[in-house]
Amino acid sequence: MNSDTFIVPQPPAEPFVRVVPLGGCGEIGRNMTVIETNDDLVIVDCGLMFPDDEMFGVDVVINDFTYVRERAHKLRAVLVTHGHEDHIGGIPYFLKAFPGTPVVGTALSIALIKAKSREHKFGEIDFVTVKPGDRVRHGAIETEFVHINHSVAGACSLALRTPVGTIFHTGDFKFDQTPIDNKPADFARIARIGDEGVLCMLADSTNAERPGHTLSERIVGEAFTAIFQRAKGRIVVASFASNVPRIQQAVDHAVRFGRKVAFLGRSLQNVVHFSTELGYLRIPPDTVIKIEDVEGYPPERVVVITTGSQGEPMSGLARMSVRDHKKFKIVPGDTIVISATPIPGNEKKVYKTINNLYKLGATVIHGTDGRSHVSGHASQEELLLMLNLVRPEFFMPVHGEYRMLVQHGRLAVQTGVESENVFVVENGDVLEFTAEYGDKIGKTYGGYVLVDGSDVGGIGEGVLRDRKALSNDGIMMVVVAIDAEEARIIGEPDLMSKGVFYIPESGEILDDLRATLRKALEEVSVEALRDVNSVKEHIRTTLSRAVYAKTKRRPVIVPVVMEV
Amino acid sequence: MNSDTFIVPQPPAEPFVRVVPLGGCGEIGRNMTVIETNDDLVIVDCGLMFPDDEMFGVDVVINDFTYVRERAHKLRAVLVTHGHEDHIGGIPYFLKAFPGTPVVGTALSIALIKAKSREHKFGEIDFVTVKPGDRVRHGAIETEFVHINHSVAGACSLALRTPVGTIFHTGDFKFDQTPIDNKPADFARIARIGDEGVLCMLADSTNAERPGHTLSERIVGEAFTAIFQRAKGRIVVASFASNVPRIQQAVDHAVRFGRKVAFLGRSLQNVVHFSTELGYLRIPPDTVIKIEDVEGYPPERVVVITTGSQGEPMSGLARMSVRDHKKFKIVPGDTIVISATPIPGNEKKVYKTINNLYKLGATVIHGTDGRSHVSGHASQEELLLMLNLVRPEFFMPVHGEYRMLVQHGRLAVQTGVESENVFVVENGDVLEFTAEYGDKIGKTYGGYVLVDGSDVGGIGEGVLRDRKALSNDGIMMVVVAIDAEEARIIGEPDLMSKGVFYIPESGEILDDLRATLRKALEEVSVEALRDVNSVKEHIRTTLSRAVYAKTKRRPVIVPVVMEV
Repeated sequence: MNSDTFIVPQPPAEPFVRVVPLGGCGEIGRNMTVIETNDDLVIVDCGLMFPDDEMFGVDVVINDFTYVRERAHKLRAVLVTHGHEDHIGGIPYFLKAFPGTPVVGTALSIALIKAKSREHKFGEIDFVTVKPGDRVRHGAIETEFVHINHSVAGACSLALRTPVGTIFHTGDFKFDQTPIDNKPADFARIARIGDEGVLCMLADSTNAERPGHTLSERIVGEAFTAIFQRAKGRIVVASFASNVPRIQQAVDHAVRFGRKVAFLGRSLQNVVHFSTELGYLRIPPDTVIKIEDVEGYPPERVVVITTGSQGEPMSGLARMSVRDHKKFKIVPGDTIVISATPIPGNEKKVYKTINNLYKLGATVIHGTDGRSHVSGHASQEELLLMLNLVRPEFFMPVHGEYRMLVQHGRLAVQTGVESENVFVVENGDVLEFTAEYGDKIGKTYGGYVLVDGSDVGGIGEGVLRDRKALSNDGIMMVVVAIDAEEARIIGEPDLMSKGVFYIPESGEILDDLRATLRKALEEVSVEALRDVNSVKEHIRTTLSRAVYAKTKRRPVIVPVVMEV
Repeated sequence: MNSDTFIVPQPPAEPFVRVVPLGGCGEIGRNMTVIETNDDLVIVDCGLMFPDDEMFGVDVVINDFTYVRERAHKLRAVLVTHGHEDHIGGIPYFLKAFPGTPVVGTALSIALIKAKSREHKFGEIDFVTVKPGDRVRHGAIETEFVHINHSVAGACSLALRTPVGTIFHTGDFKFDQTPIDNKPADFARIARIGDEGVLCMLADSTNAERPGHTLSERIVGEAFTAIFQRAKGRIVVASFASNVPRIQQAVDHAVRFGRKVAFLGRSLQNVVHFSTELGYLRIPPDTVIKIEDVEGYPPERVVVITTGSQGEPMSGLARMSVRDHKKFKIVPGDTIVISATPIPGNEKKVYKTINNLYKLGATVIHGTDGRSHVSGHASQEELLLMLNLVRPEFFMPVHGEYRMLVQHGRLAVQTGVESENVFVVENGDVLEFTAEYGDKIGKTYGGYVLVDGSDVGGIGEGVLRDRKALSNDGIMMVVVAIDAEEARIIGEPDLMSKGVFYIPESGEILDDLRATLRKALEEVSVEALRDVNSVKEHIRTTLSRAVYAKTKRRPVIVPVVMEV
């Protein structure tokens, strides 16, 4: 997109607050919102996104920090709602760009960010650990952390009080009336904040298309009970490493049914380690055994908890499914519980893993059919309840694809928000509120930045286009040596290909193409031979036509002309 | 896989029948089964599969015909259950390999194959058109076509009577008690075939994991009624071109609500044309208008029927969603009904299309939420009913991923099939039945063949591996000229890259790499310079290390050494 289209007017002189979503509006992932007043600026979350299939070779996708960079002198803190990758994964990159920014969150969120940051190797980070109910002030912005339910412990909504009014950001949430830790969302606090008056609410739209109420985490416990009663062999539970409530349920069931627990996977072991230390996870003594020791126990006395619920090729579960795990082999009689649903785009990988596990003779329980998983996000009834508790003047659905934001906007109107006060926005839209108005006043850089290898942003559309072309039909290289003085071709043109031909058949085709090229080059005039670019163009055209005629393929063609 | 692992024993002298699934067992797509007796061989269906993301640049995937080729003298016919791509798409390729083979099916199936074959340009095909209830004999094999319900008209189950017993192949099916054409499956025939005794049943496993009963096509009609009552603007219905019952429902509703119908898309127009001619589709006169004339009608008087329910980038719907369709532009107020669910792997594309349609201001109704789509495949209750009607001695679940086959096998056991008589097989497994036994007796080539460009099978794993490597980190080429007589490097090494670097930054990096290379080459001894391969290896190692150190990328490196 042309940078001319990004125009953000100068802020007004009177008190204002701006809300700028830099990611998460219009797609799942890389959530990040800027909250900015006259002299202060805080970030709510800073996530990453994993690349899709069209982003060949890209490792991760983060947000464009330009808006923050242009206002870096006002930057006061990164506030974290909860510790999921799509909310914290961009923080190490953010801190490289803005070193020393305080990072504020609950204990588990901080622990998860610490674990992330270790891979990135930088100095001390200014962490501020808060508890639900705490308030932190950054200049004119005072933020209250409010306990909420989600599929990770320590999740909070944020009430950001500014001179113009309160911005309420739900974070990712659901209303679980019977959560595992017996701590339902802090309805009283949310209602009181609503009573005090909320200028604008930003709310999680993941399940805005789903009618009804998301099931309680406790339902998973009931499913686990049935599974544990039935399973005669070993049980393997796969979930997200950060889903501490889920891990708690698996552990509780292991204890109840007299099974030992082995944790498989480094990231999971990390999370278990600090969740236990921080009191989020309770594991009775003598429960945990090493994965290496599983073989020493009868099958009906063991539970293995692991990751890989999304079919990630390097995860514990995927490697087990192709018998590629050194420490654990699936045997007939094992029961595998995949306690998660595939994120859109991961379906094929997940089903491949399941099919492979079946082939090894395991029983696989997956998806929501057996209720072995429930969503961590609020469905329509909960979204309506949140709207009715908070009763915001303005509403901005976030955290969802466009279709979900539209649907969430409709729900807001149903609860009485004026439809012109509903902002279904895209990343980079700048909302500004003063005592007089609330409106979309401009647009900043809301695009993504590709991280490939060690290189942040050092890969553009051109590189991706090249990789796509290469992946479709491969590449051919032609090397021709020209005697520059005499303007004549020396020797034979050299022809190489990668990803174009099936090797056993390529010899003959290459010989034919070489002959075609030689003939074409013989026809080039002496004058033309003096112009390297025209020789290159001639080679490209000739070869492209010949290859297409023979194979109906269009490889990338790279002519190299050496003048010697 | 090593071909040594494929062993098919000589057939016995006594009467036998072999059932050999060459595709469709263990994955969705490219369905094909061989039914073979002592002197005769017929094929049931011959489908194709679309490549997945790992098959870079491949156009379509067909089956390995080796087993048929080795027995070509016995080949009598291709029998077609119904006209879906995954059952007929491979027929043109099959007929290229086995010209003149008769193709037997109901009228719509034949019409769809004809349309396909036209693209492939060959001579006359020996088509045999049958009606449900008809019997056709091919040597010792007599096949009866039995009417069944599915999401395309003219779908049949096949009862193949052989000297050893009857093989019953359900084809793709559901039991629709209230179908649009008022023709429920021919329960009486199926029951009578069951009464006569069935040796082995092969049955559709697509929905074997789904409890209950698949909803009737008529339910979609109820959903359409609600949608047509509500819609104030234009209505666009997207479905599969071959889903004639669905098209019928859209047309019926258009007529009922006083709207004209425009068909958008060439494949759809084709299907409408011959379905109408064959009597499968009934469109009252003065109903159809040209897509170019839609603008001339009030919005509430028009329905556009189109394809693209899977988000296919070149389809009508996808192009509308990005305002790239010349003949039809989405405007606010339009209602889009996506009357299909995403096939696993297509989710992201479908949701992208939906999001884009929302951004244009359209209302989008999608998925099964609004009941605007029902599956064409039997769920568990129907599968159990089929098993109880047919009561086969042996059972082979087909048409599904491995997990679905396993589940379907369990259902068979519940209806009384002996568990050792249930064959959950993979493509290429050879089942043999005689008066004495029924068993898996060998394995033939069940793999897939990639079609890329004009080239059938002319692309192997090596090519795909290269394309994958190219797509991940791009490619770098180094050209070095060596004076062969004096064994010294001439001039500068030439360095090129595709898909590796971001152009604005690449100049400096390439200069650095060139310097590194030059230094490395200076250190090569005169003897080593005489060995082209050692020079190449030296270049590859040096460059690979230097690029990785600078960028953490590992491009494919192609060294070219020219001796002049």
